[in-house]
Amino acid sequence: MPADRNVYLKMKTLPEARQTIFTHFPGLDGVSSETVATPDAVGRVLSEPVFAIVCSPNFHSAAMDGIAVKAEKTFGAGETRPKTLEIGKDAFFLNTGNVLPETTDAVIMIEHVQILEGNRVKIEAPAFPWQYVRKMGEDIVATELLFPQNHVVTPYCVGALLSGGVFSLAVKQKPKVAIIPTGNELVDWQGMPPGALKPGRVLETNSFVLGGLVDAAGGSYARHGILPDDPEALTAALRQAAQGDAQIILTVGGSSAGAEDYTRAAIASLGEVLVHGVTMMPGKPVIVGKIGTKPIFGMPGYPVSTIVAFEQLVRPLLCRMLGKPDIERRTIPVEPTRKIPSKLGIEEFLRVKLGKVGDRIVATPLPRGAGTITSLTQADGIIRIPNHVEGLNEHEPVMAELLRPLSAIENNIVVVGSHDNTLDVLADMIRARHSHLTLSSSHVGSMGGLLAIRRGVCHMAGTHLLDTQDGTYNISYIKRYLPDTPVRLVHLVFRDQGLIVLPGNPKAIRGIQDLCRKDIRFINRQAGSGTRILLDYRLAQLDIDPSTISGYDTDEFTHMSVAAAVLSGAADVGLGIYAAARALNLDFIPVVTEQYDLIIAENYFESENIRVFLEIVRSRAFKERVQALGGYRTEKTGEIIQWA
Amino acid sequence: MPADRNVYLKMKTLPEARQTIFTHFPGLDGVSSETVATPDAVGRVLSEPVFAIVCSPNFHSAAMDGIAVKAEKTFGAGETRPKTLEIGKDAFFLNTGNVLPETTDAVIMIEHVQILEGNRVKIEAPAFPWQYVRKMGEDIVATELLFPQNHVVTPYCVGALLSGGVFSLAVKQKPKVAIIPTGNELVDWQGMPPGALKPGRVLETNSFVLGGLVDAAGGSYARHGILPDDPEALTAALRQAAQGDAQIILTVGGSSAGAEDYTRAAIASLGEVLVHGVTMMPGKPVIVGKIGTKPIFGMPGYPVSTIVAFEQLVRPLLCRMLGKPDIERRTIPVEPTRKIPSKLGIEEFLRVKLGKVGDRIVATPLPRGAGTITSLTQADGIIRIPNHVEGLNEHEPVMAELLRPLSAIENNIVVVGSHDNTLDVLADMIRARHSHLTLSSSHVGSMGGLLAIRRGVCHMAGTHLLDTQDGTYNISYIKRYLPDTPVRLVHLVFRDQGLIVLPGNPKAIRGIQDLCRKDIRFINRQAGSGTRILLDYRLAQLDIDPSTISGYDTDEFTHMSVAAAVLSGAADVGLGIYAAARALNLDFIPVVTEQYDLIIAENYFESENIRVFLEIVRSRAFKERVQALGGYRTEKTGEIIQWA
Repeated sequence: MPADRNVYLKMKTLPEARQTIFTHFPGLDGVSSETVATPDAVGRVLSEPVFAIVCSPNFHSAAMDGIAVKAEKTFGAGETRPKTLEIGKDAFFLNTGNVLPETTDAVIMIEHVQILEGNRVKIEAPAFPWQYVRKMGEDIVATELLFPQNHVVTPYCVGALLSGGVFSLAVKQKPKVAIIPTGNELVDWQGMPPGALKPGRVLETNSFVLGGLVDAAGGSYARHGILPDDPEALTAALRQAAQGDAQIILTVGGSSAGAEDYTRAAIASLGEVLVHGVTMMPGKPVIVGKIGTKPIFGMPGYPVSTIVAFEQLVRPLLCRMLGKPDIERRTIPVEPTRKIPSKLGIEEFLRVKLGKVGDRIVATPLPRGAGTITSLTQADGIIRIPNHVEGLNEHEPVMAELLRPLSAIENNIVVVGSHDNTLDVLADMIRARHSHLTLSSSHVGSMGGLLAIRRGVCHMAGTHLLDTQDGTYNISYIKRYLPDTPVRLVHLVFRDQGLIVLPGNPKAIRGIQDLCRKDIRFINRQAGSGTRILLDYRLAQLDIDPSTISGYDTDEFTHMSVAAAVLSGAADVGLGIYAAARALNLDFIPVVTEQYDLIIAENYFESENIRVFLEIVRSRAFKERVQALGGYRTEKTGEIIQWA
Repeated sequence: MPADRNVYLKMKTLPEARQTIFTHFPGLDGVSSETVATPDAVGRVLSEPVFAIVCSPNFHSAAMDGIAVKAEKTFGAGETRPKTLEIGKDAFFLNTGNVLPETTDAVIMIEHVQILEGNRVKIEAPAFPWQYVRKMGEDIVATELLFPQNHVVTPYCVGALLSGGVFSLAVKQKPKVAIIPTGNELVDWQGMPPGALKPGRVLETNSFVLGGLVDAAGGSYARHGILPDDPEALTAALRQAAQGDAQIILTVGGSSAGAEDYTRAAIASLGEVLVHGVTMMPGKPVIVGKIGTKPIFGMPGYPVSTIVAFEQLVRPLLCRMLGKPDIERRTIPVEPTRKIPSKLGIEEFLRVKLGKVGDRIVATPLPRGAGTITSLTQADGIIRIPNHVEGLNEHEPVMAELLRPLSAIENNIVVVGSHDNTLDVLADMIRARHSHLTLSSSHVGSMGGLLAIRRGVCHMAGTHLLDTQDGTYNISYIKRYLPDTPVRLVHLVFRDQGLIVLPGNPKAIRGIQDLCRKDIRFINRQAGSGTRILLDYRLAQLDIDPSTISGYDTDEFTHMSVAAAVLSGAADVGLGIYAAARALNLDFIPVVTEQYDLIIAENYFESENIRVFLEIVRSRAFKERVQALGGYRTEKTGEIIQWA
């Protein structure tokens, strides 16, 4: 089983890998052109310079409604010495856009013309030559260069091109990319009922993501059916693709150095492997090869790896083939909310959530794993940690590439702390009513939220911290941990916490007292989470020693992860909210109703975004949606909690 | 003829007009949804929140190639105390992505496993629980909110959606926009041979530009045939469109207050005119109306007006209907190269060329007329001069909205001065070979170029200034006007200057000496242009008094405009370069061969962009293309001219 394994060639840095690609594939040939009607050329790249065929305007025309005159015949006119002109001889009525009669060279606005009897008009000021005249060729002169080759056509350009008499033009054909997904575990979603996925099987999604990225870069793609991990099938498919009309070939999966990673060998058997392994993360196990003169990329199978590898290596080649600059992301300085260590010798693409808190843009890191596509879909930006840097320091500004417009980031309402499903409801309702606003939440537990408020890196924190002395929630923690930070406390919901078990409760668990049973594996929440505090409180009340609970030291960060652990059989039981149990069709044994509140930094409490947010919190629609989730009570939702 | 004229309603400011639109058309209804396959949803807006249907991964899987173990069975293993595990019982070989066997909870990398005989392996370190395991739901937990409504789908999202088991989704239908071009002068380009346009006729281009902008904003459009300026036809078409399936109606042209502007009356007869005239330029004569509950916009006929009106009034409504934020342009501070007066009470959208010269981004204004579409296609940015401001001051920083990425602007090679057609050739060749570089030229005459160099607002200046004392070009002007500005002088071309006349030379003009003939109308170049200096020099040599030349005081700014004036019959003859005559199929009477050089500021001479530029100037390919234009000699092209 641990059969022949590949070894990475000496890994290249990203600039080295890119240089290798550009050296082997200058990208200047292979793209032919096609002729399209001008309005259909938007977004396309000109393969030739385009010159105007006609002038625009193609005649001298009036730029105002009025009369056309020969300017020199008006010289000397004044208020005390008006001039009279004869219509049809010295003056001609015309409207904006009309052709100037041949003998005239100026227009007088109708507002300055007095109409007399007998086909005559009076003027009280002279016209200077060419006043209010749009001259022939004023905008475009025939034969002038309208756009150079490699220009990308915009809707504006369509106006200039048509006006210049250019009704069709030569644009570069979209480079064709063949995408070949590989992997025994992969299944095709097309034709599959959602939810019918069996354990061990993985939906093949990368080819569609890559296809979308190819389209967005100006290429076109054809997707190959899923190939099994079989060297012969792969080699045959590659040979066929190399002979086909695709200009770039991507295989997906099997590019690493594992026992079932056959891509490298298949490329080597048909051509040459130029790069295997790039010192970047995600995206390391990428292969660049050449079959004949054709570039082939062995893309990694993890979704974020494959995207990073595409954007850093494939898209630059596509853009070069098209003769246009690569897509450029705006970069801005941001402050990491915590220290982030990083490996020397690896360029990391760290996905972060961004938000403007006070004067700073703060960056909260998202999961770093290459398998987590949501780390990219939730990201507002990417911090690139260079090879020679060991990590980022808290609050030390670094540059982030933006994945969304800056104004969107400035309109992120940053909530950090304990997770509750009602935050998802709020996120949806805010976006529905105020499309420029986003509720951006990070789940670090209640104590994490409190500390984030103290460090000034969020607008608000979700928290449900029980004071085990007096049974109150949150207030004593605020007094203790935020003595110098002015905050408001807004009640969000009461919610049921309870034990989450498999449907039918096969282990017949009755309550907290059963957690120390030998036949039961528990899944815990992380230290500092409100749920953990609640558990410890109940264990103390029941005089149960935590060390007698199997799994007490294994923890998860969210209610949903706890529920997932139970569903997957990794644990028999966990403590969490009803909504999480219900979401995964698990059974729920209520233990306690607890209070979940929002701590809002006083600085931002009066801001427009928070005002809008609270308006939604207090709306009937929100309360109804929350009640529909089950396990919640909303009778005090939105109330401001006072304390002495 | 000066019949019934409309009067603008009290004009509104842009914010007032927008407020009126949003009040009358909240934009929340009228957009229905449609279901599309997930990969086809890129760029579309979600009409409902989307929740995950399955977990991703949907099982615990290995994150590394290696063996799966139960972590607690490995506790205590060390270098001096290795542990031995039995394959198939305590340990299971597996590859990245494989399902974790039920009894296991950790993976040990194959590199850390020693394979023994007899189906056994040895490890020298313990595993901690869940190491190298991708847990079920690590990326996505079933039922979690993937994206809120109003989210715009990206290629990344496709990955998250498919992984979450969402194979199709509800997106908002593209709002339908009906576009109705109006105007007696308009002709359809479709089916017309290029060049067959008759004087007085104008190609209808606006509907295609507007259509492209509608598409880009996420709508769809249907174009109506061209309507004549006929109130009844217009009213009938509007009535029909109001009853049709379009959600927004645009008429184009006829929105002003002229005698043939019928749009306002037509809207009033069917519904209500809400706005007529907005205090912006271009775009002032726009109408906003309402027929039933449907918004109708009377768009101005000038191309830049119609675009500004669309982007400022129609697109915001479209975006609101779609529930997404309007397109946002990046703004940066720029420095105008000269004072620009502007009307109080009008918000002007000034189109500018931008370039980075030294540390500053300098802004050179483009023609301000609403009829000049090339002022928009050549623009790098737009400076909005607010209602209450009377203009811009030279060098005083103002904000500009960018129409191109900042890096493109930073890679503009800014050339200001006399125009020569070989600059077009260079512009094309630079872009062809270096797609990130643009040659951005402004035509202000040779002296204007010298002054731009002195003021530090360009990288180089094109110039052909004759020293009438010694017959040399440019050097004496550099000495006189740039005594303290270090520059290099690079020779570009020798070129023929001569008299441009109609084909066949109907007035039998033989040379400069004929310009004072009574039957000849001349068209001059502006003062400070090299051509003007050349003319004056020859007139002095021939002892001709300029005041005896009819048209001496009428001037144009480019060779091509001079040629266009001759072609249009506005003048009989002008002085210009051969290339301009040939471009318009005019006859040419050579007068002199002159020297056209480039003055390059010493500061930038060694820069990479200028190095690349000069490499092209000196290439054989450039010289061949220049020679093909005719009227040029290139034997010294690219040489550096020294002077004492």
